[in-house]
Amino acid sequence: MRVSRFPLHTLKEEPAGAEIASHRLMLRAGLIQKLSSGLYLWLPAGLRVLRKVAGVVREEMDAAGACELLMPAVQPAELWRRSGRWDEYGPELLRLQDRHARDFVFGPTHEEVISHFAAGALSSYRQLPVNYYQIQTKFRDEIRPRFGVMRAREFLMKDAYSFHADAASLDDTYQAMFAAYRRIFDRLQLKYRAVLADTGAIGGSASHEFHILADSGEDRIAFSDEGDYAASVEFAPTAPAAERAAPGAAMEKIDTPGAVTIDALAEMLDMPPAKCLKALFVNGADGGITAVFLRGDHELNAVKAAKHPAIASPLQFADAQAVAAAVGCAPGSLGPLGLNMPVLADHAAAAMSDFATGANEEGRHFIHANWGRDLPEPQTGDFRNIEEGDPSPDGRGRIRIRRGIEAGHIFKLGAKYSEAMDVKVLGENGKPVTVMMGCYGIGISRIVAAAIEQNHDDNGIIWPAPMAPFHLSLTPVGYHLKPRVKTETERLYRELLDAGVETLLDDRDARPGVLFADSDLTGLPLRLVVSEKNLDRGQIELKHRRSGETRMMASENCAGAVAALCADLLQSPP
Amino acid sequence: MRVSRFPLHTLKEEPAGAEIASHRLMLRAGLIQKLSSGLYLWLPAGLRVLRKVAGVVREEMDAAGACELLMPAVQPAELWRRSGRWDEYGPELLRLQDRHARDFVFGPTHEEVISHFAAGALSSYRQLPVNYYQIQTKFRDEIRPRFGVMRAREFLMKDAYSFHADAASLDDTYQAMFAAYRRIFDRLQLKYRAVLADTGAIGGSASHEFHILADSGEDRIAFSDEGDYAASVEFAPTAPAAERAAPGAAMEKIDTPGAVTIDALAEMLDMPPAKCLKALFVNGADGGITAVFLRGDHELNAVKAAKHPAIASPLQFADAQAVAAAVGCAPGSLGPLGLNMPVLADHAAAAMSDFATGANEEGRHFIHANWGRDLPEPQTGDFRNIEEGDPSPDGRGRIRIRRGIEAGHIFKLGAKYSEAMDVKVLGENGKPVTVMMGCYGIGISRIVAAAIEQNHDDNGIIWPAPMAPFHLSLTPVGYHLKPRVKTETERLYRELLDAGVETLLDDRDARPGVLFADSDLTGLPLRLVVSEKNLDRGQIELKHRRSGETRMMASENCAGAVAALCADLLQSPP
Repeated sequence: MRVSRFPLHTLKEEPAGAEIASHRLMLRAGLIQKLSSGLYLWLPAGLRVLRKVAGVVREEMDAAGACELLMPAVQPAELWRRSGRWDEYGPELLRLQDRHARDFVFGPTHEEVISHFAAGALSSYRQLPVNYYQIQTKFRDEIRPRFGVMRAREFLMKDAYSFHADAASLDDTYQAMFAAYRRIFDRLQLKYRAVLADTGAIGGSASHEFHILADSGEDRIAFSDEGDYAASVEFAPTAPAAERAAPGAAMEKIDTPGAVTIDALAEMLDMPPAKCLKALFVNGADGGITAVFLRGDHELNAVKAAKHPAIASPLQFADAQAVAAAVGCAPGSLGPLGLNMPVLADHAAAAMSDFATGANEEGRHFIHANWGRDLPEPQTGDFRNIEEGDPSPDGRGRIRIRRGIEAGHIFKLGAKYSEAMDVKVLGENGKPVTVMMGCYGIGISRIVAAAIEQNHDDNGIIWPAPMAPFHLSLTPVGYHLKPRVKTETERLYRELLDAGVETLLDDRDARPGVLFADSDLTGLPLRLVVSEKNLDRGQIELKHRRSGETRMMASENCAGAVAALCADLLQSPP
Repeated sequence: MRVSRFPLHTLKEEPAGAEIASHRLMLRAGLIQKLSSGLYLWLPAGLRVLRKVAGVVREEMDAAGACELLMPAVQPAELWRRSGRWDEYGPELLRLQDRHARDFVFGPTHEEVISHFAAGALSSYRQLPVNYYQIQTKFRDEIRPRFGVMRAREFLMKDAYSFHADAASLDDTYQAMFAAYRRIFDRLQLKYRAVLADTGAIGGSASHEFHILADSGEDRIAFSDEGDYAASVEFAPTAPAAERAAPGAAMEKIDTPGAVTIDALAEMLDMPPAKCLKALFVNGADGGITAVFLRGDHELNAVKAAKHPAIASPLQFADAQAVAAAVGCAPGSLGPLGLNMPVLADHAAAAMSDFATGANEEGRHFIHANWGRDLPEPQTGDFRNIEEGDPSPDGRGRIRIRRGIEAGHIFKLGAKYSEAMDVKVLGENGKPVTVMMGCYGIGISRIVAAAIEQNHDDNGIIWPAPMAPFHLSLTPVGYHLKPRVKTETERLYRELLDAGVETLLDDRDARPGVLFADSDLTGLPLRLVVSEKNLDRGQIELKHRRSGETRMMASENCAGAVAALCADLLQSPP
């Protein structure tokens, strides 16, 4: 392709309002343009990338036996009412009315539609398992869309839904999808982790997220420095401590005027926050109040805590006045002594000894407090995020934490939707059975942005070859001035195309500096420079975008050598 | 592909509510399923067809130098306000509000968005011409969606928009798109006509519609039986008659009690409606009333009539009471004599002689009336649809009329949107110039339905090979009962795949009658039947879906012969 026929729409200026590298570079490299908040045009170069990613996803879904179909973007509200999500889903669900004032949604996801379809189309266990997928435009009315297409309102997604007569079949397809997702990210040459995820509000029994690793990622991933374990920091369980140190000096009550936070207390007592006990009061499952204690340097994990039988779900903090009335003391000096309510402690808090804690008298704390000796032994549980250095939950090594961008999610839905939408088939025994479902999503447009987060430098994008809009930038110096450069460039261009190299010939009448800068910015894996100086020596300059290395190639047979190099790049591991 | 892994979702029963063949057959053949009024799922087989059509469109657009991009489906109302279409577009425009109560539309078309983009992206005549296209889901909130995907609310469309520094460049691209559209419909092996169309409400200076010919089409196309001329019946001009026959007997006023319609009058007088003059009264351009006369067997063409300087645009019939007051007679006996208003007659009406017409007295008509001798000579014009047998407007042959389905539309927009959206570039002389635009649409999903309207029989669909979901149905008789049939079928299946034949192996455990019926219904161009009886003779049966012809092939080298046949079918003319 020639740039004269394939407008690049690159920008020289830094775009305003782009907070992260991928957003800035996608705008500057002419991949996208903003239309409105969270709404973007995919320009020619960007769309080529998007379609390449979609192509890899489609191939691997097909290879894994999934069947592609296409569902409407606009869905009748009736289906969402039946599943209960018309009420449950917040304002991110774009609701609309047609000319007859009937309610519809612009689908953010298609569980309802596919279940409705399956209820009519599936009648026998012999049609199962079956796995339908689509690659389609979705809408999520984010309150604050940002980061370009990373968190856009309109986005391209692959969503798949599988149907099963039993849990074993669901497990098989789940594993097949897990393997297909690995192949997808491997083929795209991205560094990623498949992490255990919380099944959270969607319900269901197993879930993995696929995170593309990038320092700018919004999610923190905990993984073992020795084993395969990986999970989101919110989900990774923390283990009970092996032992608790023996108590030391006797407990002592001291005045701590004004020290109503952990930080203030730690500073006043000149001890680390990890030696102070943090007290939280939440709504109990029985309608009363439950006390939860954490190590002073730890944060509550609301999802984990809400799973404890003594805590109401979803977790809510108890009313401050009710706490003060129940304990007989205002917040700031609260502790476990003499509480007339369930007393829970996180594993790490329960392993503390000789710690500071509130005395349940305003302005006073205990020091040298110890569970068992001074305070009632608490019920223990896992109420916090895992942290760097914690033991890995699988017992192998210690936890390291890196940032990631969620780009895929696979999920065992079980019977949540099939029950609501009445998806039954006749089982082997001739009796109706509610089917089991799995769902499997990949954010196609998000992958493009995440790949750039992981692969860029100060000069621009560094595309992994399988998703580059073209494989090679053919950059002549003096195309419009020197007939010999033009002739050689055209000859080489034809040879490259004949050799199957996806070549972008920059035939613009612009200064070499502009061409080189745009070539770096747009990030094609390879660049060939044709210049009169090099031609005098019978040479063409080849530059690798990622390493920055250049070398001279004989202009004879250059195309063949480059084609071989491209084939290598398309195969290379992440 | 095996049917066991590629669910067909065919229906045995006739679907309710399907009025036309393509709707019925698409539902029965498992290509689509209805979700809600005008909203359809594309099931696996249907999506394969849709993607093949899209693929041909994409290839020809690329070959014609157009650049693919992708615009958001959701568009800010602000742009539509600027173009004026927020108010002009009726309730077919699906309007919606986001969570912040800002107005948006689900785009039925993208002139506003692409113009907005172009205003920012294009700055110099040197960037022109450029032609951007997308293949994308659109929404039109039809008041009465029907005919399945033929007139759905959500549909897949290719829309292209070109930008030019001058009219000559627009003309070049218009011609290139015209040629690309011909190649698209030729490659899809559809019978079609490129017809001159009215530029109507969209404004602009030239327009062709591409109609797929089918008896069930909603549009009537007039074309010459000798030349290339083709136009919609609404648009094709009618020519003034060469001469008018000389008057005969003297005009006579007769009683015509109760004959207030042309049909009643013709019956009472025992003469053809073509010998009666039809009187219509419309709002005049000057605020008064204008009389328009047609031959009794002709119908008014409102678009043509509204172009006459004596008629208000858009055309509206005059108030009946005002007419009665102006003429002094109630409708039913109105004629041209003594009218105090502009008197117009269609060319054909002006060519009448010795005709019947209202006497402007209730219950009375003239017979043997003649223009000039008895009645004032009218202003003549083209106020009716062209009809079968009329001379062709290009002077070559006579008009024939067939029905068609509009599947493509190309249009010179001129400066309509570029003016409204302020799309200017610096021209060669350094001064800003408003760009000229063209737009070029193809209804991808509609083509699928229209192709079926043109290509089906009582047993089902007859796909043109280039859009068939698969090229060949491999149908074994006794696959699950006879090991030899299974072995031979599997061997043949592998050979066919190796030979590049898109094969659907029907490996279902069902009666041969069911397999054959589904094979006819789903309409793949070729079917191979493997049966024990044929294997005894070393033969495989080949059936052409279109001709119904069967022949025996040697099972040796069958795959190679079929591959050659497929290549022929993919190339064959419509």
